[in-house]
Amino acid sequence: MSATRMQLLSARNVRLFTQGRSELSAGVRSPTSPALWSPSPGRALSGLSATRRGLPKEKMPENGASARAKVLTLDTMNPAVKKVEYAVRGPIVQRAVELERELSEGIKKPFTEVIKANIGDAHAMGQQPITFFRQVLALCSYPELLNDSTFPEDAKSRARRILQSCGGNSMGSYSASQGIDAVRQDVARYIERRDGGGPCDPDDVYLTTGASDGIVTMLKLLVCGKGATRTGVMISIPQYPLYSAALAELDAVQINYYLNEEKCWSLDISELQRALDEARRHCNPRALCIINPGNPTGQVQSRQCIEDVIRFAAQERLFLMADEVYQDNVYADGCRFHSFKKVLFEMGPEYSDTVELAFFPLHLQMCGFRGGYMEIINMDEEVRAQLSKLVSVRLCPPVPGQALMDLVVNPPQPGEPSHEKFIKERTATISALAEKAKLTEQVLNTVQGISCNPVQGAMYSFPRITIPEKAVKEATDKGQQPDMFYCMKMLEETGICLVPGSGFGQRDGTYHFRMTILPPKDKLTTLLNKVKEFHQKFLQQYS
Amino acid sequence: MSATRMQLLSARNVRLFTQGRSELSAGVRSPTSPALWSPSPGRALSGLSATRRGLPKEKMPENGASARAKVLTLDTMNPAVKKVEYAVRGPIVQRAVELERELSEGIKKPFTEVIKANIGDAHAMGQQPITFFRQVLALCSYPELLNDSTFPEDAKSRARRILQSCGGNSMGSYSASQGIDAVRQDVARYIERRDGGGPCDPDDVYLTTGASDGIVTMLKLLVCGKGATRTGVMISIPQYPLYSAALAELDAVQINYYLNEEKCWSLDISELQRALDEARRHCNPRALCIINPGNPTGQVQSRQCIEDVIRFAAQERLFLMADEVYQDNVYADGCRFHSFKKVLFEMGPEYSDTVELAFFPLHLQMCGFRGGYMEIINMDEEVRAQLSKLVSVRLCPPVPGQALMDLVVNPPQPGEPSHEKFIKERTATISALAEKAKLTEQVLNTVQGISCNPVQGAMYSFPRITIPEKAVKEATDKGQQPDMFYCMKMLEETGICLVPGSGFGQRDGTYHFRMTILPPKDKLTTLLNKVKEFHQKFLQQYS
Repeated sequence: MSATRMQLLSARNVRLFTQGRSELSAGVRSPTSPALWSPSPGRALSGLSATRRGLPKEKMPENGASARAKVLTLDTMNPAVKKVEYAVRGPIVQRAVELERELSEGIKKPFTEVIKANIGDAHAMGQQPITFFRQVLALCSYPELLNDSTFPEDAKSRARRILQSCGGNSMGSYSASQGIDAVRQDVARYIERRDGGGPCDPDDVYLTTGASDGIVTMLKLLVCGKGATRTGVMISIPQYPLYSAALAELDAVQINYYLNEEKCWSLDISELQRALDEARRHCNPRALCIINPGNPTGQVQSRQCIEDVIRFAAQERLFLMADEVYQDNVYADGCRFHSFKKVLFEMGPEYSDTVELAFFPLHLQMCGFRGGYMEIINMDEEVRAQLSKLVSVRLCPPVPGQALMDLVVNPPQPGEPSHEKFIKERTATISALAEKAKLTEQVLNTVQGISCNPVQGAMYSFPRITIPEKAVKEATDKGQQPDMFYCMKMLEETGICLVPGSGFGQRDGTYHFRMTILPPKDKLTTLLNKVKEFHQKFLQQYS
Repeated sequence: MSATRMQLLSARNVRLFTQGRSELSAGVRSPTSPALWSPSPGRALSGLSATRRGLPKEKMPENGASARAKVLTLDTMNPAVKKVEYAVRGPIVQRAVELERELSEGIKKPFTEVIKANIGDAHAMGQQPITFFRQVLALCSYPELLNDSTFPEDAKSRARRILQSCGGNSMGSYSASQGIDAVRQDVARYIERRDGGGPCDPDDVYLTTGASDGIVTMLKLLVCGKGATRTGVMISIPQYPLYSAALAELDAVQINYYLNEEKCWSLDISELQRALDEARRHCNPRALCIINPGNPTGQVQSRQCIEDVIRFAAQERLFLMADEVYQDNVYADGCRFHSFKKVLFEMGPEYSDTVELAFFPLHLQMCGFRGGYMEIINMDEEVRAQLSKLVSVRLCPPVPGQALMDLVVNPPQPGEPSHEKFIKERTATISALAEKAKLTEQVLNTVQGISCNPVQGAMYSFPRITIPEKAVKEATDKGQQPDMFYCMKMLEETGICLVPGSGFGQRDGTYHFRMTILPPKDKLTTLLNKVKEFHQKFLQQYS
């Protein structure tokens, strides 16, 4: 791509991803000229095109006229898509990629390396992959390796089981749209073990193309109505922007409930009630989404809180969606992950037989494989049939991701040859994360003007930052959110790529950024010190 | 799943996938009782749920009341999703899966094996996987294998190049949302080679989660408007039902143009014009979709036809979408694949600088990996930025599928160690398919009451079948499409799973089925003979 085009796109994308929606359709546009192109109604061409029949030259686009003649323009495209915003992959990341290219081309910068702390991409951040997973995937990819004596027997037996469940014993075949039977069975057994024996029917499990796919599919089923009866969906603020993006695309109403930053991002039922009551005046609230452990906020909800949320959903007739992808990532002392399903079933049939719940558990760690699953509970049988039909249109989730999911829920067991190594690798990863969660909180809280809640779980910290009035003004004058201005400046000066809090939502007048805690400890230390240094300089500059 | 539940679902799904839309919302439904559950507006609960505050027992759902209390029912779900139909994975396939289970449980049937000829699933049908692809995928999955001397050097160098383009040198990392840079570069070079030197900018290439994903994404950008200004999209009849399903879900207008069965499923511009003129009376036609080679019809369009279509699109201001996934599968003598892009560029700047085109080329053969790509040409730059934003919400296409795509567009070259084996494997597959295409046409045309156009390309035959009046009546009495009735009967009596023509669309009063030509030759011969025998018996029974 030429430098000019990159600048053009880059400048535009900053606008696209960060600014008010109204601006997207404002500004001067080239007028479209349908009159030039539209044939008179009902005109028949008898199978010949106008050009071949010698249509006058002036009806053909002239040089430079192509922009005017476009069928698809910003003014004529799907307005719902225009409203979509997705900060995690927004202009900051695009600029980070450009800076990396510039560095590699030898252009001097105030830093030697770009650190992308914007996204929870474990392997890209140097997290050690699990050998067992890689071995089984290699065996499934190239089954001739099953004759290779250097592969452990348990890896081979998993691979054989997966391949036997694939058409033609090949991962290259389509699977059932809902996912491979054997994998869904393993997922069901995993959920039963996790929740201490509660039943899980593999038919309630749907494998998906990443957790995002499952969440969007469920939201798709739920949206209906127009105007005051439009479906409303409650999401936390701050939220993971997949939710707001999907709701914008589906033209549903986003109902914000605010997490309590002062109480470590806890969830108050009274705030849920406030948000719901207000929303009922202009839409039809039908679903409540909870992210636990929190993304971007890293909190882990208490058992009591989950019970209260379930009662609230039951009483207010809300479909519950529980995003539990980071359930294995809980670090803080005294914190424990409680699954919505387990709590629901412990509350007895009054709830467990009635509350409609879809939950999305478990992070693959190997995100690039795009694997995920959901379990649905108490869904109307006719709606379930519609869900099965809907997922069939996309044929099937990627089979390598399904295979990987099978390993995640069914890792090597004690006594199996790969067990020891697996436990060692996994423990190293989890304890390193726990250490890095603490380190992040500690260092950030030493900085004047930054305050960071404990990172109880997930992979992110979401500290609050002070942005001086002068900087707020400069940002506003530039048409930027103040925390976008802050993060862009940090990227340009330090090479550190964070996501501004405005991309996740935050209380008016407060500013944050999301930072993953994934980098290796030495790199994380460097990163945190650079953030500290930058923030101090920033405060000085704008105070 | 219990047998009863399976029967229930199965019976319902036959209705769901095959019958008129009005029926879906008809029939007796359990009434929902919002009054029982809706709190009075504005009521505050002070953070406590009704139950904990001792809400009267009668406000809680009673035994058996759960069905009434559901938030999400057929009546309250997204009506657009209800309209979606997808025959390729419909009730026929569900019944086939049940029959396989029954056979494996030892239940006697008039056949010993179910042959799923409903879908183009190459590996599941015994097509030999390409060794080189499998080797590179194994190397990428478990890079320790790069030290294994049994792997050929060219496989290793491809794997190294792919891994170097992945964050942390791992396929487990997310890629750029548009796809891995190196893969898009290889795709661009492939398109240039294919089209004889025409330019291809890697920035115009988007990697996708299968071709379906790209097609749906493009349609998503195009839809807008309500009522008489609703976006209309022209699709061929017969069509691949992804198109109709996506248009239903997006609430766009499906504009049918009919392929000419008498002329080997050719495309007439006069028919395009007729369909367009009629559609302009009630919607805003904005896009024209072409499937070439045809699915389900297997025809290969001539260069002249493609030129005419491009002129038509230019003149009528239609965005062109060219589905060319089967471009490598052309069998018939005298037929050649012509890409829309190549023809567009040969027509000169009057067209190549103006006509908006998205094309979706190349079938992976390893469908389970869900890889694909599209190139966009002449797209408005602001719309392109919106497209990039939209794809970023799903983070990235599956990385193993991207890696595989890289190998498909960049296979072993002459002089490389894997070249000979690769050519041998690929040639064997293609010539076997050519032979099977002929065999299918020949055998089917020997059957009275079946007539089959030559299978010029792709992987399917779509023969026309005679269904006697008596059978049509029996089907109609059962509320089934006559060709669904026919295919269901064939499945129950012979174990052969085909898709009824009604799932793809056909002229009123004509009946067809789609059958893949993928099964190995001996199995295909058995299959064709069984179809012949069944059809003869069917004609006798109902004449």
